[in-house]
Amino acid sequence: MAGQGITVKKSEDFSEWYTQVVLKSGLMDYGPVQGTIAFREYSFEIWEKIQEIFNKMIKNTGHRNVYFPLLIPESFLRKEAEHFKNFVPEVFWVTHAGDNKLGERLAIRPTSETIIYHFYSKWIRSWRDLPVLLNQWCNVARAEIKSTKPFIRTSEFLWQEGHTAHATKEEADREVMLMLKFYQELMEDYLAIPVLVGKKSEREKFAGAFYTTTLEALMPDGKAMQMGTSHNLGQNFSKPFGIKFVDKDKREKYVWTTSWGISTRLIGAIVMVHGDDKGLVLPPRIAPYQVVIIPIYYKKGEKKKVTKKAKEVSSILEKNGVRAVVDDRAEYTPGWKFNEWELKGVPIRIEIGPLDIKKKQVVIVRRDNFEKVTAEEKDLPKKINFSLNEIQKSLLKKARKFLEENTATVKSYEEFKKVLEEKGGFIRACWCSEQHCEDQIKLETGATIRIIPLKKEKIFSKCVYCNKKAREVVYFAKAY
Amino acid sequence: MAGQGITVKKSEDFSEWYTQVVLKSGLMDYGPVQGTIAFREYSFEIWEKIQEIFNKMIKNTGHRNVYFPLLIPESFLRKEAEHFKNFVPEVFWVTHAGDNKLGERLAIRPTSETIIYHFYSKWIRSWRDLPVLLNQWCNVARAEIKSTKPFIRTSEFLWQEGHTAHATKEEADREVMLMLKFYQELMEDYLAIPVLVGKKSEREKFAGAFYTTTLEALMPDGKAMQMGTSHNLGQNFSKPFGIKFVDKDKREKYVWTTSWGISTRLIGAIVMVHGDDKGLVLPPRIAPYQVVIIPIYYKKGEKKKVTKKAKEVSSILEKNGVRAVVDDRAEYTPGWKFNEWELKGVPIRIEIGPLDIKKKQVVIVRRDNFEKVTAEEKDLPKKINFSLNEIQKSLLKKARKFLEENTATVKSYEEFKKVLEEKGGFIRACWCSEQHCEDQIKLETGATIRIIPLKKEKIFSKCVYCNKKAREVVYFAKAY
Repeated sequence: MAGQGITVKKSEDFSEWYTQVVLKSGLMDYGPVQGTIAFREYSFEIWEKIQEIFNKMIKNTGHRNVYFPLLIPESFLRKEAEHFKNFVPEVFWVTHAGDNKLGERLAIRPTSETIIYHFYSKWIRSWRDLPVLLNQWCNVARAEIKSTKPFIRTSEFLWQEGHTAHATKEEADREVMLMLKFYQELMEDYLAIPVLVGKKSEREKFAGAFYTTTLEALMPDGKAMQMGTSHNLGQNFSKPFGIKFVDKDKREKYVWTTSWGISTRLIGAIVMVHGDDKGLVLPPRIAPYQVVIIPIYYKKGEKKKVTKKAKEVSSILEKNGVRAVVDDRAEYTPGWKFNEWELKGVPIRIEIGPLDIKKKQVVIVRRDNFEKVTAEEKDLPKKINFSLNEIQKSLLKKARKFLEENTATVKSYEEFKKVLEEKGGFIRACWCSEQHCEDQIKLETGATIRIIPLKKEKIFSKCVYCNKKAREVVYFAKAY
Repeated sequence: MAGQGITVKKSEDFSEWYTQVVLKSGLMDYGPVQGTIAFREYSFEIWEKIQEIFNKMIKNTGHRNVYFPLLIPESFLRKEAEHFKNFVPEVFWVTHAGDNKLGERLAIRPTSETIIYHFYSKWIRSWRDLPVLLNQWCNVARAEIKSTKPFIRTSEFLWQEGHTAHATKEEADREVMLMLKFYQELMEDYLAIPVLVGKKSEREKFAGAFYTTTLEALMPDGKAMQMGTSHNLGQNFSKPFGIKFVDKDKREKYVWTTSWGISTRLIGAIVMVHGDDKGLVLPPRIAPYQVVIIPIYYKKGEKKKVTKKAKEVSSILEKNGVRAVVDDRAEYTPGWKFNEWELKGVPIRIEIGPLDIKKKQVVIVRRDNFEKVTAEEKDLPKKINFSLNEIQKSLLKKARKFLEENTATVKSYEEFKKVLEEKGGFIRACWCSEQHCEDQIKLETGATIRIIPLKKEKIFSKCVYCNKKAREVVYFAKAY
């Protein structure tokens, strides 16, 4: 453990603050290869929580986990032209096995559509084989040369990628929407991060997709973060890969495929959205530890008694479904431990001293607002569970307020540029639907269309760029 | 699903039998790159069970999961000479990122000691930082050119690799033994595969280890399978990687490290040990489905009623902790389904027909011995749980009997060669401890020392090869 505090304010140097928090709280460390990181136990346990939550959602709806090969022959990647063009600059190429030069270069998967579809074309023959609802949790690698950032943009990351095949477009549409719903639930109800949900424009969609849906959150520096995507790939991959089935009507048809993913990037978003000048602030539902119990004693004779009580309390909490830990390390002072666990963002701290034992009480301190209350021992499980819920709700509420306060509706390009420059955030504007305007805005301001709402919003002005007739209300932002 | 039976007998063509079972039961499919496979849902779910079981064991004893980078700079691998020499012929080398040639080649991890120790040397400073008890579940790649076999020897596989650092040799020893105990429990109590447990000889130990302990099972063709290993790496890695700590006595010391692993190879062992001429036979404790319920109806009017009852039974079983599935697909006959689920090795089949409903009973068929009994509906959860336990025990018992019957004690080299040629299995023999004898035996017979028992066994003859004074009783076998 680092045991040192954060030396800059979140509001003053956000980028440096982020770097210090992820390093000092023990979430990660930098790897020897550019852009790679080690996911230390404290971040990996958050990832395990995310896996547990999402696995439950998808398994309950008939999806099953699998594992496909890491290495993809170059010829596979080339089968879908857009896809290849997009990913090839970032591919890590394997050229040798031992001393032997390979006949064909192998890509470390940047994403697995092409290798998975190779298998689907072998497995799918009949309508009886559909739908295919598979998912894998794995590592993917994309060589990131510039602007790497731990969790947010790394040369290797962990993710899940779901890949499904369906008989019809409508079924594929429903699958895309189901995943979007699950993702939103995960992000808002568990990570306490509110998201805007919608479609991507043609320019911004996944390379090779029929259409892409996305969930976008707002970071404290006013930049948007793409939190997850769910694509209907249409028949764009089933055709080059020959994934055909004989339907009930005896006719041979191409399947419709979808893919959907979330990655360890979510961990970075949690840090950014909830953290404060003291370090991490973790939403209780995904915190590796929800409660840290710190025994406080001054005289030597008190240690045993206080530590025993701390362990008793911990065990009672664990029996009530709370993830608790006792920090009984003798080599550190209580003050040092307070700082350490605040840095690590544990939602609740319980302090127990000799006087508390006498009074059959404990002191409870909330990490999010530092509210300090005394609770009777007998009420503890109820009280803690209540507080954890309160913290969870409060973090979401605060983040939602920020999102709302930083979503501006603009009617002119002047206003657009002013808002973007002064505070960033999401900019709600009308758009003519022409890619030219989108391109120019990106070129001139750096902002892109983050979402086109699923439910068309009412047009309230001309196109913010060209001033011609608008067709869509969309949300722009600069993004990570 | 394949829906076709196995066309060879396990006893007649074991290798072809194995290939047919793993393919037709839907466990795997071959990948486009030599030696790679897709882990289909049916094998991956077994792996998930293994993860769940082992995670519980290690987390309860203070170990935590992490994730280290996939790509290892060549210079890291070179730091421990033996280690490098051993792994380098199998390494997949990354030489380019996009169009850029890399300054240094990167290895796809064949194992992670070197990259992990790079981090440990940064993280460990003081006795307060010890022990470090970390584990990762990940993919590793080793280019296998010849004799690849699904699950058993593949160019990419999944495993867990635990890596711990300790202040003393004794602590590292205890860690090695703890993992050996956990592995044995996993293999025998869950996979129903009995193992011989012991040390490896110097010749057979892990490249770079101080010593290696291992668990070895016996396959039906008389060959041994290394099921898992737990190494004390001594200070062999901490010295080249500079992993030092200041001890309580203020002196700087090198840590002692251990590593331990099990892989998806275990899935292959399950297939080999328990399978029969009809396909897979899965031990209930790791079977994705423990019970398949097949509604049986002949007249159209019966379908709804029977299917409803099947679902009712399934839901009662699930409430009682049984993993049950109803196969109500209308497009297949009951007979077809029986074959299919026998191929997939589901421990228990329940048949429900109209007459059974009337009599408030069901028919239960055990996969391992095809014993068929009728059970009253009201006793079902108890009865099923009892049967699952019986099957689990019976599989282990049968496998243990095979192991015992195929472990021969020999006193002469003539006898050694005769047993090895005629039936294989483990050969218990005395050995002088000289590597020369071990080398010659390997050269002349293909057999290697699989284990040296942890508890020295009583010498009962001269060295089986050189006829000089023996120092150890050891177990030889040909191995996968």
